[in-house]
Amino acid sequence: MTQHKPWKTLSYSQVLDTPYLKIRCEQVAVPDGPILPDYYIIENRGWVGIVPLTADGRFLINKQYKHGIGEVVLEFPAGGIDVGEEDTPQQTARRELMEETGYSYDDNDIEFLAHMLANPTGARTRIWWYLARNVRKTGEQKPDPVEVIENLLVTPRELLHLIHEGKFAVQGQISAAYLALERLGYMAFQG
Amino acid sequence: MTQHKPWKTLSYSQVLDTPYLKIRCEQVAVPDGPILPDYYIIENRGWVGIVPLTADGRFLINKQYKHGIGEVVLEFPAGGIDVGEEDTPQQTARRELMEETGYSYDDNDIEFLAHMLANPTGARTRIWWYLARNVRKTGEQKPDPVEVIENLLVTPRELLHLIHEGKFAVQGQISAAYLALERLGYMAFQG
Repeated sequence: MTQHKPWKTLSYSQVLDTPYLKIRCEQVAVPDGPILPDYYIIENRGWVGIVPLTADGRFLINKQYKHGIGEVVLEFPAGGIDVGEEDTPQQTARRELMEETGYSYDDNDIEFLAHMLANPTGARTRIWWYLARNVRKTGEQKPDPVEVIENLLVTPRELLHLIHEGKFAVQGQISAAYLALERLGYMAFQG
Repeated sequence: MTQHKPWKTLSYSQVLDTPYLKIRCEQVAVPDGPILPDYYIIENRGWVGIVPLTADGRFLINKQYKHGIGEVVLEFPAGGIDVGEEDTPQQTARRELMEETGYSYDDNDIEFLAHMLANPTGARTRIWWYLARNVRKTGEQKPDPVEVIENLLVTPRELLHLIHEGKFAVQGQISAAYLALERLGYMAFQG
């Protein structure tokens, strides 16, 4: 039986500490192995994604320029967990959906979809995904001043087609799409 | 029609420049918007993931402690693109599969699965996923000295079950699993 022993953090320094990005550099002891002098880890409170579905069965997605990759991308609404929201990621889901789309949902129309890890090698980041049914427009977008977010409605078949075409291409977003399609009965295992 | 104009990088500084992690901080002009003084972007050559399938229809996955998240995780083999491999991510796929599992495949048994973006907001990272069929053990693992990788074989149904249980939980890995299950005919759209 292979042993998977946790590594031990001997010390660390905060090499980057900004509101947007925090990086720590750890000195780590590998069990039965060397001491690593510089193991970099991205830290944050994690983020929340929400798959919004309208009563007539269409997914609500965002089209937005993202400067990290320098391209316009298609994504479900998602955003970072704010201070004070650590124990209630559903709160983040509701806030982000309203900010990015102006849509909301009744409390009994949201369900947990999946808990994911962003990048277990280099980040502490955890992700919570929810599925919200019967979403409807009840307010107005309140994006950050620098954000231009276009909201689109696509059918389940169109969403899958966007994935196959490489147009819905963000790794965690694809996962959430398949999980939702399966949960909603649009995809099923056939052995 | 909503305009999605690219932002303009006015200047940048390299705030972290290590073999493992490179971070740049850009001063960015948002069209019709403000100038952002500090937009942080994670840079790298990207990484490659490979979904290995044996001739008897089982997926080969790794079980390994990952120090970023501090947990043992299940993942398909994947790894960073080395210098010189930028134009041939298939080369990275073959190398990583051998290093992490000792398995290989014939040249005509590998196919492109998907191109993904890791985190379009905060990273330049691109990902290439491949599906390799009829993989077989032809060598020995050559993991990094600090890595302990256990190789497991799971059926398509078991893989899906691991996803549903939250045990196969890395965001991009879930995407690759669903894409492979669909490509192989184990999942299909039912409208």
